[in-house]
Amino acid sequence: MSPDASPAIPHPFDAAVALEPLGEGRWRGAPHPAWANMVGPFGGITAATLLAAVLRHPARLGEPVSLTVNYAGALADAPFEIDARPVRTGRSVQHWTVEQRQGGEVASTATAVLATRRDTWEAVELAMPAVPPADAVPPTPRFSKVEWPKRYEMRFHAGPWPDLRLDAELPDSLSTVWVRDEPPRPLDVLSLAALCDVFYPRTFRRRQRFVPAGTVTLTIHFHADAAELAAQGTRPVLGVARGLRFHRGFFDQRAEAWSDGGVLLASSMQSVWFRE
Amino acid sequence: MSPDASPAIPHPFDAAVALEPLGEGRWRGAPHPAWANMVGPFGGITAATLLAAVLRHPARLGEPVSLTVNYAGALADAPFEIDARPVRTGRSVQHWTVEQRQGGEVASTATAVLATRRDTWEAVELAMPAVPPADAVPPTPRFSKVEWPKRYEMRFHAGPWPDLRLDAELPDSLSTVWVRDEPPRPLDVLSLAALCDVFYPRTFRRRQRFVPAGTVTLTIHFHADAAELAAQGTRPVLGVARGLRFHRGFFDQRAEAWSDGGVLLASSMQSVWFRE
Repeated sequence: MSPDASPAIPHPFDAAVALEPLGEGRWRGAPHPAWANMVGPFGGITAATLLAAVLRHPARLGEPVSLTVNYAGALADAPFEIDARPVRTGRSVQHWTVEQRQGGEVASTATAVLATRRDTWEAVELAMPAVPPADAVPPTPRFSKVEWPKRYEMRFHAGPWPDLRLDAELPDSLSTVWVRDEPPRPLDVLSLAALCDVFYPRTFRRRQRFVPAGTVTLTIHFHADAAELAAQGTRPVLGVARGLRFHRGFFDQRAEAWSDGGVLLASSMQSVWFRE
Repeated sequence: MSPDASPAIPHPFDAAVALEPLGEGRWRGAPHPAWANMVGPFGGITAATLLAAVLRHPARLGEPVSLTVNYAGALADAPFEIDARPVRTGRSVQHWTVEQRQGGEVASTATAVLATRRDTWEAVELAMPAVPPADAVPPTPRFSKVEWPKRYEMRFHAGPWPDLRLDAELPDSLSTVWVRDEPPRPLDVLSLAALCDVFYPRTFRRRQRFVPAGTVTLTIHFHADAAELAAQGTRPVLGVARGLRFHRGFFDQRAEAWSDGGVLLASSMQSVWFRE
């Protein structure tokens, strides 16, 4: 066997979002141990996996414009099934509903909008935060108690992992972090979706301590088109996140992902359940 | 017949979100002419109607935490059916999927998260914009070409309806507006959902002209609990909206709704299709 014919070892990201087709928009997958969170897999890899089911569907039209993922129950370390269904296809916009089931129960649901992009009037109103370039920010030591952060190189400029020795409430929950897949992998819309969830719960940041928390719903608006994604390559993306209001068991987080060239690649919001 | 026994004329909002139960989580409704948009009904009233189907379902648990509505096709002036299904109910969180159909086609889909709220650590990080109180801002003359804006009293502090005589591009798309139902109606979670969509497309603001545009997906995170909603009564709510990036046929809009006492009632984002 020539070296070229040897089976390539897939990147951990591609291994995690791999799906076995079952026909008629149904797919089988399994949580990948490299992406384990405290309970079940990292929410970002679930988002990417649900979107992957849409993008691999033969009826797919265009590129993702938006994705909402609702985390209904933690996944066990066992296979799951995904059902992706195009509910309506227009001339340039296509709407999808997705359901992920495991052991007879719904683990997550999603809706997605795909579209054929075409040139129009252009403007950017949001400003990229003024932060040093990625190579001027040292990589932040990884948070070792959980597996999935090891799949990223993170260079926090503000709001790094909580310092449990502080035991003090901080006035804001802002994090700015240069982040890329580890090992490096060229950015695509699936890895961008996962990147939108790399921010640890904002309650950890504000309170500098861990309390139970979990995302209940995540919405991503994709701005980057295929050319902008391809231009990013393996270079770090700037992630920005902060909480808006923490109230009676839930908070919401707004976040953005920027290219190192200052292009707004995606914006997102998520609602997170927390205790105490 | 005594005056007390005469049938009350419902408020136009309640008339629009009225649903006839068909059993098993299915409901029948119809677009209300008082809420007509350029094509089909105002998106905010559709969001409120889909949420109403969830809240009236006998399996409902708790209060809305989030709602995502995907606008898949314009509604004709004819009855529609809504199917609301609780996909997973935990101890305190309940996940829903909703589908609205008309003439055999999906007109919209939605997902919602409901939860039993309980006291926890509290914080607000987002600041309410510094604007004069509602009674210091005169009501803005209504935009007369469309019906639904007549259902609101709007007092724009910034970013009022476009001035077509300007024919000039503006540097930002910010709107701040005190808004309440017209005639006045006590705020509830359904009218709050509709209020999150009262902002005309940000392309109209930036470019001071009308081009075809329509929301493809809207996500709302509800912060206000029942007590905060009740405390608001019929007084105006401050709406704040701005676009982030306008690129190849789509832009996203971030928005907030604030009580007149400075409570963040809801945050939202939507992705809007536009032409040219």
